[in-house]
Amino acid sequence: MGYISRHAVLRGFASESTIILGRSEIGEETFLDEFVCVGYPRRNKLLGFSGKFADLDDLSSGARIGRKCIIRSHTVIYEGVEIGDNVETGHHVLIREGSRIGSDSRIGSYAKLDGKVEVGSRVSIQSGAYLPHLTIIEDGVFIGPGVIVTNDPYPVSRRLLGVRIAREAIIGAGAVLLAGVEIGERAIIGAGAVVTRSVPAGMVAYGCPARVMMTREEYDEKRRAHEESGA
Amino acid sequence: MGYISRHAVLRGFASESTIILGRSEIGEETFLDEFVCVGYPRRNKLLGFSGKFADLDDLSSGARIGRKCIIRSHTVIYEGVEIGDNVETGHHVLIREGSRIGSDSRIGSYAKLDGKVEVGSRVSIQSGAYLPHLTIIEDGVFIGPGVIVTNDPYPVSRRLLGVRIAREAIIGAGAVLLAGVEIGERAIIGAGAVVTRSVPAGMVAYGCPARVMMTREEYDEKRRAHEESGA
Amino acid sequence: MGYISRHAVLRGFASESTIILGRSEIGEETFLDEFVCVGYPRRNKLLGFSGKFADLDDLSSGARIGRKCIIRSHTVIYEGVEIGDNVETGHHVLIREGSRIGSDSRIGSYAKLDGKVEVGSRVSIQSGAYLPHLTIIEDGVFIGPGVIVTNDPYPVSRRLLGVRIAREAIIGAGAVLLAGVEIGERAIIGAGAVVTRSVPAGMVAYGCPARVMMTREEYDEKRRAHEESGA
Repeated sequence: MGYISRHAVLRGFASESTIILGRSEIGEETFLDEFVCVGYPRRNKLLGFSGKFADLDDLSSGARIGRKCIIRSHTVIYEGVEIGDNVETGHHVLIREGSRIGSDSRIGSYAKLDGKVEVGSRVSIQSGAYLPHLTIIEDGVFIGPGVIVTNDPYPVSRRLLGVRIAREAIIGAGAVLLAGVEIGERAIIGAGAVVTRSVPAGMVAYGCPARVMMTREEYDEKRRAHEESGA
Repeated sequence: MGYISRHAVLRGFASESTIILGRSEIGEETFLDEFVCVGYPRRNKLLGFSGKFADLDDLSSGARIGRKCIIRSHTVIYEGVEIGDNVETGHHVLIREGSRIGSDSRIGSYAKLDGKVEVGSRVSIQSGAYLPHLTIIEDGVFIGPGVIVTNDPYPVSRRLLGVRIAREAIIGAGAVLLAGVEIGERAIIGAGAVVTRSVPAGMVAYGCPARVMMTREEYDEKRRAHEESGA
Repeated sequence: MGYISRHAVLRGFASESTIILGRSEIGEETFLDEFVCVGYPRRNKLLGFSGKFADLDDLSSGARIGRKCIIRSHTVIYEGVEIGDNVETGHHVLIREGSRIGSDSRIGSYAKLDGKVEVGSRVSIQSGAYLPHLTIIEDGVFIGPGVIVTNDPYPVSRRLLGVRIAREAIIGAGAVLLAGVEIGERAIIGAGAVVTRSVPAGMVAYGCPARVMMTREEYDEKRRAHEESGA
């Protein structure tokens, strides 16, 4: 089992069951784990699929993965994806066509980049987070487990609006972000919040619907006290 | 690797690692992807399992999948499932025993039909949605990503009540629907809502707990304005 | 395909594609399904990984799984995990290093024990639940589908606080539990709740944020009436 396209350039390590399709490029010291697919073809190519695996390989334009990455088991990475250096995925991750991930970022188990998603460097996306087409995540952002980002203000409409999460922002576990909102630099969203409006830079918002409750400076002070109370 | 039961009828295409158990029937031009299992045996059959794979195959009554379907990688479809024509699943989908899915429907990645679930035609179930035993989804419904439907009003009770979602209704991302509620025809549930009571046909409800906020006609007018403002 | 370490002791059944690494011990009559990995090495071991699979095997200290367990397809169990007898996992489950699971417990499909998590006996964890490092689940607890437990009161801090869920408590579907809360014995959390404070033993809380609404005795009375009304 396993399959490595003759069009692919594999400088790292593939496991026995890894499948690499199309003109994929895998960097030095990168590890592709068991039951992983890289270079998965986008939908319109599958629709006319003849059933011959070699055809599937020829259809794929491949994915590019940098150096020293770890792509853990059961992960699927589509064609047209670009991943930087020192990136890690958990298990069962899905990264759809056109997504880009900067260096030193981590994508948790079961996270889904479901369309063209831009992820910066040093980003941490925790388990099970859902990021749809058009989402933009800037450098240093933290996305908690189970966060759901949306892209359609009036489903099912013909005009999608991506969510932008600016540098160093933190999104708490299980928060739901409505289409088109902007989360400002260093802003924080509390766990379980439903975010219906943009949150300015440096502000902390939570609740259903989320409201601004304090500043990032106040939050950082509480965090400092919390950390010290356990010392 | 991979296994195709001698009891199965495969008219479409299976990948090298696909596993097909029991009297499964796979229609013309249907594609079964890598690391997919079809005809997975229900629990009570596994309990007495001897460890011989051929026995597992003999135990399964198989699943039926129609024509021109795409069943993407890492998906598990149980025995007793019936799927129509032109159905697509994403990756890592789970469809448990007894579920039925009408033609032209799509089941997103990581979605779980966890028991006997009825899904109509032209239904769109987005990534990670959870639909338990007894859920009924009528034709043309849209279920957003991460929606959680429940079936027990007083867990853990001995009397489950399924949720019914009527024709053309839309359930926003991350909504939680309590056991036994009915979502009327063309009704809309906002993202992040917790739905504790039934919502009448043609109404739009959101919030925690969800309350009716406008009519579908008003919503459609807002959607039209939204679509036009981007033109 | 598939791989069974020469260091492992397999008394049960492995499927053709099952991967067992390191000094894993698998009890009598336990069934390891297709596309399952057992004894997966923790992160710091992978970082210096040479790319040789035999090395990966030598790196793993293995996992221990008891008798009569069913580990369903696409599940990943890390090294250092201990699982009792008669435990079942669903499909696509992830159990990280150091977690312990008592006998007769069930871990639903897509559930993630993401770090060192202690799970008692007769526990039922439903599909997609997320339990991070330091979570403690006592005997007889029920965790509904899509529940998200957290462990950092001020993300991203250096002081994590685990959630403890005491004996026989019930957590409703989609609830979010904030770091450090304690859910008392036999307490109940309603579906969709956001739990920001501890809930005393024998109390029922729900809402966003969750508030105590009734006693367990009142709840049990309602449950009894619900069960009888369907008889």
